[in-house]
Amino acid sequence: MRDLADRLDLLALNGATVRERWRLPEIVDGCARHGFGGIAPWRDQLQVTGTGTAARLIRDAGLRVSGLCRGGLLTAPDEAGRRAAIDDNRRAIDEAAQLDAECLVMLAGGLPGGSRDLRHAWRQVEEGLAAILPHARAAGVPLAIEPLHPMYAADRCCVNLLSHALDLCERLDPENQGGIGVAIDVYHVWFDPGLDAQIARAGEAGRILAFHVSDWRVPTRDLLLDRAMMGDGAIDIPRIRGRVEDAGYDGLVEVEIFSQHDWWRRDAEEVLTIVAERFRTVV
Amino acid sequence: MRDLADRLDLLALNGATVRERWRLPEIVDGCARHGFGGIAPWRDQLQVTGTGTAARLIRDAGLRVSGLCRGGLLTAPDEAGRRAAIDDNRRAIDEAAQLDAECLVMLAGGLPGGSRDLRHAWRQVEEGLAAILPHARAAGVPLAIEPLHPMYAADRCCVNLLSHALDLCERLDPENQGGIGVAIDVYHVWFDPGLDAQIARAGEAGRILAFHVSDWRVPTRDLLLDRAMMGDGAIDIPRIRGRVEDAGYDGLVEVEIFSQHDWWRRDAEEVLTIVAERFRTVV
Repeated sequence: MRDLADRLDLLALNGATVRERWRLPEIVDGCARHGFGGIAPWRDQLQVTGTGTAARLIRDAGLRVSGLCRGGLLTAPDEAGRRAAIDDNRRAIDEAAQLDAECLVMLAGGLPGGSRDLRHAWRQVEEGLAAILPHARAAGVPLAIEPLHPMYAADRCCVNLLSHALDLCERLDPENQGGIGVAIDVYHVWFDPGLDAQIARAGEAGRILAFHVSDWRVPTRDLLLDRAMMGDGAIDIPRIRGRVEDAGYDGLVEVEIFSQHDWWRRDAEEVLTIVAERFRTVV
Repeated sequence: MRDLADRLDLLALNGATVRERWRLPEIVDGCARHGFGGIAPWRDQLQVTGTGTAARLIRDAGLRVSGLCRGGLLTAPDEAGRRAAIDDNRRAIDEAAQLDAECLVMLAGGLPGGSRDLRHAWRQVEEGLAAILPHARAAGVPLAIEPLHPMYAADRCCVNLLSHALDLCERLDPENQGGIGVAIDVYHVWFDPGLDAQIARAGEAGRILAFHVSDWRVPTRDLLLDRAMMGDGAIDIPRIRGRVEDAGYDGLVEVEIFSQHDWWRRDAEEVLTIVAERFRTVV
């Protein structure tokens, strides 16, 4: 397990963490000033700044891109919607390639249009991933399926366990040619009694493409926008990081905090200072 | 799979569903008037009415008790707390026996006192269950471990998957002598890709002690108190009920809705009418 005390070069800041305060150029600048090693922009942030400009700013700042947020959302109520989603994912892959992103983070998508058919949604996700995987491979941008916490199953992401994400990887890439893997976010997976085994399984197949941290607030006041800063919540982050690194992961550790009541309201400079401090001490 | 259209005798109403409007005697009376077959009181409701009085009212009304809510909460920061929890569970078992309850619903408990050690909490749960199981067996009240949705892992219940609950059953009762099983609540388990397999596993061992229904609201505005009425949410309830009944369950179907913004504000008579209608048509 790596000692992070002097390794801010391993810290990547997810752009959502200060999205209410800074646009992408300021985030890039802030990450560089604080000595962070990477950044994970969101596509809407790219659109404001322009992908070409963003790519240049990030490169000039010497930052790696731990992942582009986000692709996926592959469930849809009709064929036109599914095709539009696939096309949009191809564009996301191209943007990720322009940024030299280490992966495209993939959210499965929820139950489409009031459906209750989870199995149908799962099939749509698998078929959608199969449709875009060749483009991702050609572009050199691996797809990182991120299982989201089960509380998002209905409206955001119907792939909620690491075991499910890895099942998808194995079915879509049975010979392990690569191009598809998982993003492991402690916020989404920490409760799972099968987590250690699934991390090991992911590592053995070389499928851990990203590792994200934040913390689980007690009480959680909002399902989406109430994540805690690392160290302020219930998750034993070092334990999970240890398992992920034991499994062979040696990439960036991405900090991603959605927090409408707290961190999004604070001065972004202060947020980056605290992110750095917590990264060095409690991650 | 049973046809519920004319089987209100299979409907048990969980006392929480109308707790803001009615005390236990009114709930018993309401259930009887509407032709429901059962009721599931909460211990705080028993305390107000008196367990002896409640038992008599329920018996006189011809209602079955699908379960007593609730035992468990077996995690604690120190030995005194753990012992107090075990003693309290013994009292809960005695109350359940007085009511002729078909099970005592067990919530594991969350991470005690700011702990982040999930494994330690899991061990406490297992040891606590082991400590009370003999009393439950002697009293003829089976313990029904209810896996709660993973969003409650930190503060309420660290057993969040049916597979985990069944692992506990198998370790605590390896020779399947009985006295311990699971309560399956669609609200807590619907997202799980392993659900069908785990329901079958539970059924094979004769461990399905209770089956609860409500629905998952989109969006969910509160982690605890925003459940939907059956038919108004994302869960394919008949599908899950079919699996549970295919696995051999032939007991009551308990309706349990926590809903501070909607159902708790409505007239209780109206709630029971709608519960009955939905039970007959969409459960």
